[in-house]
Amino acid sequence: MNQPEFCNFAACKELKTLSKKMNQDHKHLKNLIQDPERLNELSIREDGFFYDFSKQRIDRSILNELIRLAGEAKAKDKFSRMMSGEIINMTENRAVLHTATRDFSPAPVFLNGTDVKPEIQRVNEQIKEFVLKIHSKKIKGTTGKAFTDAVVIGIGGSYLGCEFVFTALKHSITPQIKLHFLPNVDIDNFGQVIKEIDPETCLWIVISKSYTTTETMANLEQALLFLKNHHLDPAHHLVTVTSKGSPGDDPSNPVLASFHMFDFIGGRYSVSSAVGGVPLSLAFGHDVFIRFLKGCHRMDLHALNAPEDKNIPLISALISIWNSNFLDYPAQAIIPYCSALSKLAPHIQQLYMESLGKSTTMDGNPIGHQTGVIIFGEPGTNAQHSFFQFAHQGSPFPVEFIGVVNPVYTKAQASSKGVYNHQELWANMIAQAQALAVGKDDDEKAKFFSGNRPSSTILINDLTPESIGMLLSFYEARTVYEGFVLGVNPFDQFGVELGKILASDIRNQIRNKNMDANYSFDSLNPAVQFYLDTLFKGSL
Amino acid sequence: MNQPEFCNFAACKELKTLSKKMNQDHKHLKNLIQDPERLNELSIREDGFFYDFSKQRIDRSILNELIRLAGEAKAKDKFSRMMSGEIINMTENRAVLHTATRDFSPAPVFLNGTDVKPEIQRVNEQIKEFVLKIHSKKIKGTTGKAFTDAVVIGIGGSYLGCEFVFTALKHSITPQIKLHFLPNVDIDNFGQVIKEIDPETCLWIVISKSYTTTETMANLEQALLFLKNHHLDPAHHLVTVTSKGSPGDDPSNPVLASFHMFDFIGGRYSVSSAVGGVPLSLAFGHDVFIRFLKGCHRMDLHALNAPEDKNIPLISALISIWNSNFLDYPAQAIIPYCSALSKLAPHIQQLYMESLGKSTTMDGNPIGHQTGVIIFGEPGTNAQHSFFQFAHQGSPFPVEFIGVVNPVYTKAQASSKGVYNHQELWANMIAQAQALAVGKDDDEKAKFFSGNRPSSTILINDLTPESIGMLLSFYEARTVYEGFVLGVNPFDQFGVELGKILASDIRNQIRNKNMDANYSFDSLNPAVQFYLDTLFKGSL
Repeated sequence: MNQPEFCNFAACKELKTLSKKMNQDHKHLKNLIQDPERLNELSIREDGFFYDFSKQRIDRSILNELIRLAGEAKAKDKFSRMMSGEIINMTENRAVLHTATRDFSPAPVFLNGTDVKPEIQRVNEQIKEFVLKIHSKKIKGTTGKAFTDAVVIGIGGSYLGCEFVFTALKHSITPQIKLHFLPNVDIDNFGQVIKEIDPETCLWIVISKSYTTTETMANLEQALLFLKNHHLDPAHHLVTVTSKGSPGDDPSNPVLASFHMFDFIGGRYSVSSAVGGVPLSLAFGHDVFIRFLKGCHRMDLHALNAPEDKNIPLISALISIWNSNFLDYPAQAIIPYCSALSKLAPHIQQLYMESLGKSTTMDGNPIGHQTGVIIFGEPGTNAQHSFFQFAHQGSPFPVEFIGVVNPVYTKAQASSKGVYNHQELWANMIAQAQALAVGKDDDEKAKFFSGNRPSSTILINDLTPESIGMLLSFYEARTVYEGFVLGVNPFDQFGVELGKILASDIRNQIRNKNMDANYSFDSLNPAVQFYLDTLFKGSL
Repeated sequence: MNQPEFCNFAACKELKTLSKKMNQDHKHLKNLIQDPERLNELSIREDGFFYDFSKQRIDRSILNELIRLAGEAKAKDKFSRMMSGEIINMTENRAVLHTATRDFSPAPVFLNGTDVKPEIQRVNEQIKEFVLKIHSKKIKGTTGKAFTDAVVIGIGGSYLGCEFVFTALKHSITPQIKLHFLPNVDIDNFGQVIKEIDPETCLWIVISKSYTTTETMANLEQALLFLKNHHLDPAHHLVTVTSKGSPGDDPSNPVLASFHMFDFIGGRYSVSSAVGGVPLSLAFGHDVFIRFLKGCHRMDLHALNAPEDKNIPLISALISIWNSNFLDYPAQAIIPYCSALSKLAPHIQQLYMESLGKSTTMDGNPIGHQTGVIIFGEPGTNAQHSFFQFAHQGSPFPVEFIGVVNPVYTKAQASSKGVYNHQELWANMIAQAQALAVGKDDDEKAKFFSGNRPSSTILINDLTPESIGMLLSFYEARTVYEGFVLGVNPFDQFGVELGKILASDIRNQIRNKNMDANYSFDSLNPAVQFYLDTLFKGSL
């Protein structure tokens, strides 16, 4: 995987030169978007997914150089090698095969000479059968009552993607099992969740690849004590999603069911594995989960096969690199004009920032350029009444708008100002992208808008499982492509290790004090000492 | 209010010089925090509120210059003039008196010669009586059933603060009336909310100062049709919070109750007015809302009276200015180690970014310096498993940690690894601030941490209404102080106007098409035309 340092690509040097010209007045977006052909030239449509990058601060020559950059970085080749099972996550010596979880074609995917698909298929069948038994009430709780709720104990990659998809789909499909999320080690997360459930009709789904994640294990302990206090048997209420042979997959600790995760699927790319499969199938039925997977797969095939200039995730990754590395924008907002997508930004925040927030290249060399940006976002139109003042008149940042052509709720509706709510929503989405691009001259400086603020717009047809799958897979592929071009490993996360080590030291101090009330924190750094003393004193 | 351009303050010039020295190795945080006196010197404690800025990249000389800067900008003087009712929001020719809503002292607050407090008090009494009648079931719905739920129709400042406080308090106080939020004009927001309520036992609280906010009016129309379809009388189910004499306060449109908002309280500063008062009192009781107000007031008095070097909101504002204008950080994360504070960051995102994302000074001149930064955040430890990889090894940004000394849930708990969940939570909060500051050398570059990444830590004692009030008021005062020092008006929001104008144009186009199916969008910009055609076609 050795490749030249990003900055040494010939296209990079050319792009540096081109970026300087973008400050010229005729390159202002208000002028660029006058070109009637621009939308056609700078948009891609694929199978119910539309990507409009005509309001990005690029022109044809920049786009050509970006595509050349992708070629120099062998981005498509790497993507193909990823999907075919190569050990592409080199720092962790692993393959990266989340795409295989949604590949229903008969073609095998070999990893070290073994086809991984039969094992994936086996887990999927196991989920299907288990969920059927829960929904048909063949499996019930300790006291003979059918299950109505499930608490998902998992954090980060074992939580955010599932929450995004659950939130998106529950608008159109009424859950058969209602999901609750218990990611945080904060005891008040637990305290709040148990207010929302009936212990006798509740499943607990513990998701952790290693079954050692601190937060997840701490919450598992709370769940086990809670079950015990309610005289409920974990063997009737506990489900695990974990690696084969982990402590969560140990027959001496009987659980209701255990589903396997695989080493070749990283947490933040795991929604389409059992991590999402178990809770989402319980919520909506396994058939809905399969439809979601098929949507993911459609986008995977596009990301793999579409030529560079028509490849939505790749072009989108290149635009992101252009914005961060050449136009120096430090952040990007994701603004779905859709309530159901309210948890998209938190998921992509993890997916993207954990994948690309790196300081070394894939080869282990220090990086001399920006990798990734801050991702944040809220649904529109809400965001218009929140931080869009800043978007229009503060320091600029690119915005990604997402529109859904057809809403879920189509019953009789009132109109207001002569339009329906969904039309009002779209009027605003369209207007915001225009306003950011064109700006407005005004002699009164408080009412002057500089404009020239870039945005993209993504459209999907609806909120079906297929469309949500395509959207999720689009962001996965784009993140991977961006890592490939930048030369970083989008699959490891060594940056979280230092905090874990220091937390472990502090935990040991707390444990010592728990065991011996006379134990003193005096030997510690004064700040650490102060916080621990305050914690034990219980008052400021 | 004329003041020198920010960059021309003598302190600013000195700070520019000092900022260059901060890249020296002995100014690295790992070295600075070795000083055993640092925490004492660079922290402030006030009445159950603790602010630790010892892990910011400052030293005593920088702090002194920042305090001098506040003096040059007459920050405290402006704050005092604000609280006393001066017309300090000059672009809109308004006073700014959110602080008066929680001032229970007998002292009058004069605005144009009239004491505003009796009118505020009258509205508060009206809320108290109304809520008592709802809770005691003296007021019931059309069909004679007591109210159990309320849908809050409001967006931006009429929504985010209330949602933050509701979410924070519901962990410790079980709501008597459950709140649902309907901010978004997206019809699926409405579609989802009506799944969660029983129409016969539901109040609708419409919050809009002008009673013309597009989203709020569109959702009001949906609510009215919904009530009609269920044969329910708006006069028994609808409550308005609006300006005196607005269309929502018109006796010819009878409603169950109407509560007044005032011109001198801006949306994003309005939680302590009837905007928060009506829904929060319905949820938790008016006594709880009063306790919240008293917490706000305690912090107001501190912000007003504490000397500059001991003034938490002011020092915090100066640190923020130091980070954005001198160390060039483009963003700040707010990470409460507390599930109950999960809606704090979205509220502060609005409060701060809408207040400070400006391109003109208070005097209407273009600004040559950074004003405000991007605010984003999620609760810890969740954030550690999301974007903290980026925080440790990506482009640096300051973090604000928030810890709560005492959790709500204190029932029998399991321990894990020898510590309780709340202790584990704190171990992580402490460790993250340390890890960001000190970093770690490692020959293996993927495991190298540069450190020197600044953070603050705020502690509050608990999640009582008083503590939540202090926290909210702290962020309000800090935002205001930051605006005062930067020389921008933190109370207007002209940057949202252009989008509204363009949306209105597009709405007119849609309305024309609604009225005449043959109406064509051909005359419009091709991009706008494409989006409108897609919307009407209903398919990509």
